[in-house]
Amino acid sequence: MRAVRFEGDGKIALREVERPSPGPFDLLIRVEACGICGTDRHIVKGEFGASPPVTLGHEFSGIVESVGSGVTRFRVGERITADPNHGCGLCAPCREGKVNLCENLQPLGVRRDGGFADYALVPEAQAHALPLSIPPLHGAFCEPLACCIHGVDLAGLKTGASVIVLGGGVIGMLVVQLARLAGATRVVMATRQADKRALAQSIGATATVDPSGDDFLRRLIGESGLFPGGADAVFECAGVPETVTQMLKLTKRGGTAVLLGVLPPEARVAIEPLGLLLREVRLQASFLNPFTHARAAELIASGTVKVEPLISRTITLEEASDAIRQPAPRGEIRTLVVP
Amino acid sequence: MRAVRFEGDGKIALREVERPSPGPFDLLIRVEACGICGTDRHIVKGEFGASPPVTLGHEFSGIVESVGSGVTRFRVGERITADPNHGCGLCAPCREGKVNLCENLQPLGVRRDGGFADYALVPEAQAHALPLSIPPLHGAFCEPLACCIHGVDLAGLKTGASVIVLGGGVIGMLVVQLARLAGATRVVMATRQADKRALAQSIGATATVDPSGDDFLRRLIGESGLFPGGADAVFECAGVPETVTQMLKLTKRGGTAVLLGVLPPEARVAIEPLGLLLREVRLQASFLNPFTHARAAELIASGTVKVEPLISRTITLEEASDAIRQPAPRGEIRTLVVP
Amino acid sequence: MRAVRFEGDGKIALREVERPSPGPFDLLIRVEACGICGTDRHIVKGEFGASPPVTLGHEFSGIVESVGSGVTRFRVGERITADPNHGCGLCAPCREGKVNLCENLQPLGVRRDGGFADYALVPEAQAHALPLSIPPLHGAFCEPLACCIHGVDLAGLKTGASVIVLGGGVIGMLVVQLARLAGATRVVMATRQADKRALAQSIGATATVDPSGDDFLRRLIGESGLFPGGADAVFECAGVPETVTQMLKLTKRGGTAVLLGVLPPEARVAIEPLGLLLREVRLQASFLNPFTHARAAELIASGTVKVEPLISRTITLEEASDAIRQPAPRGEIRTLVVP
Amino acid sequence: MRAVRFEGDGKIALREVERPSPGPFDLLIRVEACGICGTDRHIVKGEFGASPPVTLGHEFSGIVESVGSGVTRFRVGERITADPNHGCGLCAPCREGKVNLCENLQPLGVRRDGGFADYALVPEAQAHALPLSIPPLHGAFCEPLACCIHGVDLAGLKTGASVIVLGGGVIGMLVVQLARLAGATRVVMATRQADKRALAQSIGATATVDPSGDDFLRRLIGESGLFPGGADAVFECAGVPETVTQMLKLTKRGGTAVLLGVLPPEARVAIEPLGLLLREVRLQASFLNPFTHARAAELIASGTVKVEPLISRTITLEEASDAIRQPAPRGEIRTLVVP
Ligand SMILES: NC(=O)c1ccc[n+]([C@@H]2O[C@H](COP(=O)([O-])OP(=O)(O)OC[C@H]3O[C@@H](n4cnc5c(N)ncnc54)[C@H](OP(=O)(O)O)[C@@H]3O)[C@@H](O)[C@H]2O)c1
Ligand SMILES: NC(=O)c1ccc[n+]([C@@H]2O[C@H](COP(=O)([O-])OP(=O)(O)OC[C@H]3O[C@@H](n4cnc5c(N)ncnc54)[C@H](OP(=O)(O)O)[C@@H]3O)[C@@H](O)[C@H]2O)c1
Ligand SMILES: NC(=O)c1ccc[n+]([C@@H]2O[C@H](COP(=O)([O-])OP(=O)(O)OC[C@H]3O[C@@H](n4cnc5c(N)ncnc54)[C@H](OP(=O)(O)O)[C@@H]3O)[C@@H](O)[C@H]2O)c1
Ligand SMILES: NC(=O)c1ccc[n+]([C@@H]2O[C@H](COP(=O)([O-])OP(=O)(O)OC[C@H]3O[C@@H](n4cnc5c(N)ncnc54)[C@H](OP(=O)(O)O)[C@@H]3O)[C@@H](O)[C@H]2O)c1
Ligand SMILES: [Zn+2]
Ligand SMILES: [Zn+2]
Ligand SMILES: [Zn+2]
Ligand SMILES: [Zn+2]
Repeated sequence: MRAVRFEGDGKIALREVERPSPGPFDLLIRVEACGICGTDRHIVKGEFGASPPVTLGHEFSGIVESVGSGVTRFRVGERITADPNHGCGLCAPCREGKVNLCENLQPLGVRRDGGFADYALVPEAQAHALPLSIPPLHGAFCEPLACCIHGVDLAGLKTGASVIVLGGGVIGMLVVQLARLAGATRVVMATRQADKRALAQSIGATATVDPSGDDFLRRLIGESGLFPGGADAVFECAGVPETVTQMLKLTKRGGTAVLLGVLPPEARVAIEPLGLLLREVRLQASFLNPFTHARAAELIASGTVKVEPLISRTITLEEASDAIRQPAPRGEIRTLVVP
Repeated sequence: MRAVRFEGDGKIALREVERPSPGPFDLLIRVEACGICGTDRHIVKGEFGASPPVTLGHEFSGIVESVGSGVTRFRVGERITADPNHGCGLCAPCREGKVNLCENLQPLGVRRDGGFADYALVPEAQAHALPLSIPPLHGAFCEPLACCIHGVDLAGLKTGASVIVLGGGVIGMLVVQLARLAGATRVVMATRQADKRALAQSIGATATVDPSGDDFLRRLIGESGLFPGGADAVFECAGVPETVTQMLKLTKRGGTAVLLGVLPPEARVAIEPLGLLLREVRLQASFLNPFTHARAAELIASGTVKVEPLISRTITLEEASDAIRQPAPRGEIRTLVVP
Repeated sequence: MRAVRFEGDGKIALREVERPSPGPFDLLIRVEACGICGTDRHIVKGEFGASPPVTLGHEFSGIVESVGSGVTRFRVGERITADPNHGCGLCAPCREGKVNLCENLQPLGVRRDGGFADYALVPEAQAHALPLSIPPLHGAFCEPLACCIHGVDLAGLKTGASVIVLGGGVIGMLVVQLARLAGATRVVMATRQADKRALAQSIGATATVDPSGDDFLRRLIGESGLFPGGADAVFECAGVPETVTQMLKLTKRGGTAVLLGVLPPEARVAIEPLGLLLREVRLQASFLNPFTHARAAELIASGTVKVEPLISRTITLEEASDAIRQPAPRGEIRTLVVP
Repeated sequence: MRAVRFEGDGKIALREVERPSPGPFDLLIRVEACGICGTDRHIVKGEFGASPPVTLGHEFSGIVESVGSGVTRFRVGERITADPNHGCGLCAPCREGKVNLCENLQPLGVRRDGGFADYALVPEAQAHALPLSIPPLHGAFCEPLACCIHGVDLAGLKTGASVIVLGGGVIGMLVVQLARLAGATRVVMATRQADKRALAQSIGATATVDPSGDDFLRRLIGESGLFPGGADAVFECAGVPETVTQMLKLTKRGGTAVLLGVLPPEARVAIEPLGLLLREVRLQASFLNPFTHARAAELIASGTVKVEPLISRTITLEEASDAIRQPAPRGEIRTLVVP
């Protein structure tokens, strides 16, 4: 079978490899779609730790082709989505139930073979059922959605809350929808590209704003802005220092700023402790998807979260290595690799 | 009667003023003790907003001398502690129950007359009973204790938690005790002065450390440190940029950093977003004492929290203005003004 | 002016009384609408404590006619909704922030004059702004909505939750909407009358069920039911013993049963402790509207919660006493008195 | 080796069985102590489901004798305590992180072989380290302690809270200590036997009361009782209908009643819905020990929780079957089997 292999030192290529056979507790699935995420690009550039040689791709789903002898819950022909992250169960964070903070994470598509391939192995404990009736590409959104569910859970939104989302990529677009679902009645998307703002509005943002320009904060939270004094919750979904600075200023008294974005290790951002104190701000980082993948699968299965408009294009396995090596094209939300 | 008046422009002096008479819902109390807080010094230097001319002093208690006609719960001769902060009930934060974030706070001793005086007015809604049987000076600690209770509540400590407290002033000393009370079994006080470390140990810290020197972090959370990888909760009680930086580094995976310290408005502190994300840190600011003053009064009344060792010296009203004008003497925890 | 007076001993009548004049912190409002609630009927029958002679009506809103000298936030001509419940600020629950559990509640329309009248007094602290642009009758729904917001907050719903609502009165109809708003994707209304089920479906219930018949539980949570094993949250909104029994059986492992219904003092319900333990059920009572009235006003102002279909009929002040004396007509959701 | 085998139909006997050898992810431990719990007695009487033939005993610890090839964290000669309960990882509750509510629990000592034996197998994922320096019998208390930690966590105690514990068995004695650790300053133990009350007082209860007699409630929460109006939290640790009734009456406005006791399946208890509503009571069931066993091990390791006084007697494997068959002797807290 074919697999997009990261071989270290910036090398990534489509290779012919042997089709794996499932261990006793594994499913072998025929991959239907696997999303290209910023993390894949970081891995190839050497900016994010991986275990080459390895098949990349951690946002995928597919059809069960065969199952190991110990598998009890899945059958050949069913559709599943893979949760690439699974706690070791032995380290201190795992034993506190903080499985996303496991000290020994071995994510599929990063440290074990993932989904940019014709077939992939998924341990039963990491497989979640999806109905055959949904469009086959949608399953690839379960993983990012599960991460966003965790972030929105941590925000503790109350019905009627005001929300600002910084960054109009796939994470921002999913957070907009989840914030609406969680009771926020006013959700503003801030992103620089006009087409992303239009998209946000079409999937649930109640307003959008271009963050360019010095007067961004004033326009948004000034006296005659949309949210005078700030929003109940602000989600950082851009992954740049500028938006980290902004999120803390945009949070209103008693509000919460949720950090979802992955910044480079060397990035530093200056905060104003007195301002945070007087407004009693909470800054909450949100990392991965602890115990949220099943809920993500259900929201995708029921069509509650709209992902069709987030598919920018589909490409083949042959095109995948190049697409990963290059920066995301302007305007792209998610590119899916369809084997 | 005598009162320490802040008259604006750095002017503070003991003045003879008329003894106030209680409005219908007020208590007039004879002040027994009023603590000098860093905020008093900031006010005189013009670094913290106040409403001169005003009698300073917001950490006080005393004996009821007379009561207004509408007062129902207090009698002449009883001891009370004043909660200087009271929400307006009309602004948006008040109506969400976030009374500490009230947009119209008029704190006693800051914007209304306070406790550096022979007598003080306290609205019934801001008075809390204390037994006559406790030492008369202890009531002056209810206000800082109430602020610390809020901070420790926000940390959400679990039984068996590890805690680091940065700063060995009165706030740090109270947080050490409250963290132990809330189930932390390992509480480390970090402060530079040896006598403060000794004091901390005597009131409940399970270990202490001198934060001076480059290897502070390594000594504390390095592999052979007290808390390898960090503590479940870190409390910033020093109010300087250095400790704000430290608190975020000292917090372990899934842990919480509580910001209690008041920094100058211009202070900026650089944070490392990626580190916060990978450890999923929560930074929680804690401001004032919403709905915690009654609990503080009870902990003082029962002697559960030890405050006797936190009284560095007592001074007279005559000495108060000078003491407030000057920086706190080295080694001081709390100076109480006893009229 | 005219006012519906409860005069004790089952006596209720429309009387001509003097139009009150506002104290310094009061608003005088011209009532636009005031809902008839089950509590009003209980008061007249002597089943619920009140302070006769008193003007009944606690679900009302209107236009500011005049204001006291100390009022700062409202002007003549503005529309407001009244929160009838206000903590005393002095009792133990109030000082813990549990203002709904105040030991000295003096609700408007129960112990102080309320809204079945041409005019009513509302303390500024209990008034919340509503825009003039909304239909004038909608403000009468803020109070029940605020109670329901509290109940739904206490349920701690997560996005994707399953919910059962028992009882299709105004409380049930509001809870259905709020549960959807708070992220529940599957909300079942159980009520006996078909037209109420149809109404529930039209405002957001994803399914409805008739609770009549022995097989109700099996139909709902049996293996081939809508929610096999139970729902994440079940709301008791009928106020009868039967539904209290049901709510605990319908709650799934780790789920929450919220008790909103007011039952007679003598009602007793048998629970099964082992079943609750093995499923680790939480039974949470929800009483009144602590710090939720402002949010209710906003949800009504924005039209987010639909109340138009909940208005069964409007009647005049002349008709009010009779309507209160009689049981609610079959099928009624809410009758509004329009002076 | 010797093992106490439950063979179904009320049969329990000490048998010679083959010493098991560890699978790749198992530890074989030499058992040092295993507590006899009420559940063991229920199993033998057929009142609690088990999988005979099976070695009973789920509260045990011991010394690692050998390890499977895949074990990475434990070495021969180390001491461990076993968490008998481990979620399957595949069912819906497990995937929500509610591992104690797993639909497929196979507890050691109930459905898989447990600790009343010379040796026992413990999967690495269920083993937690204990230091060799502590008394060898103490490890047997980790399991009940872990269950109590969960219950006390769920109560959400605040510093200064008042607590009532109903039932002076091992669960009650541990809850008393944990409640104190979690910040409760007033903890009352209610149990009928005087020696249990004395014991409770010696390990941290601030008062005790004999629940016998009609005036129990009045004595405890009447106007001149210890807790007028009730306690912030009440823990049911007796497992009888009478105490379930009591716990809901003893809970004060806004308080929580935690149900820990296991009652017979047929037990029914009458509740008063209106009382629960007006006081806004929360009834929270607490089942097993999700993610709390590591904390229990630490509290035992550090000696923070006192268990020495809870050891009523130690018996041999030969004596175990009889001891399990008979009811617990009056006055017994915990009997430990020492192979
Ligand atoms: N925490 C987690 O568990 C988790 C999980 C998955 C992903 N992530 C991280 O989440 C972040 C977002 O992921 P993604 O896939 O959505 O990334 P993405 O496609 O790169 O989207 C980021 C968006 O941010 C916008 N942006 C850039 N600079 C901005 C600025 N100064 N102000 C406002 N918007 C700005 C860009 O749109 P415009 O050009 O329109 O401004 C861009 O579309 C990444 O850092 C990713 O690594 C975190
Ligand atoms: N959030 C609230 O509601 C609230 C309420 C009251 C007070 N506060 C604030 O809390 C802070 C503490 O108040 P306080 O009255 O305890 O103040 P304080 O008496 O000034 O104590 C601060 C202590 O911090 C220590 N310190 C200074 N630099 C340090 C460093 N680099 N590392 C470690 N320790 C350092 C000092 O002791 P060494 O010389 O031994 O290092 C000093 O004793 C202040 O900023 C105050 O304004 C906040
Ligand atoms: N906790 C609070 O803060 C708060 C605030 C306001 C009101 N309440 C209480 O909440 C409850 C509901 O108020 P409401 O104004 O909506 O009352 P309501 O108009 O009387 O509605 C109750 C509904 O319950 C249904 N019902 C009766 N028996 C039932 C059964 N066995 N199974 C299922 N449904 C049944 C009835 O509809 P069908 O005929 O179709 O079955 C009825 O419409 C009342 O007890 C009220 O006092 C509580
Ligand atoms: N939820 C969980 O995860 C979990 C875990 C472990 C155990 N449990 C359960 O927790 C309960 C307690 O366990 P245990 O091992 O401590 O049991 P235990 O040794 O039987 O202790 C129960 C105590 O309750 C007291 N008691 C009996 N009737 C009473 C009454 N009417 N009022 C007050 N006290 C009364 C008895 O002492 P006096 O004779 O002095 O009254 C007895 O010592 C059991 O039901 C057990 O199955 C639950
Ligand atoms: Zn792990
Ligand atoms: Zn206010
Ligand atoms: Zn009150
Ligand atoms: Zn399971």
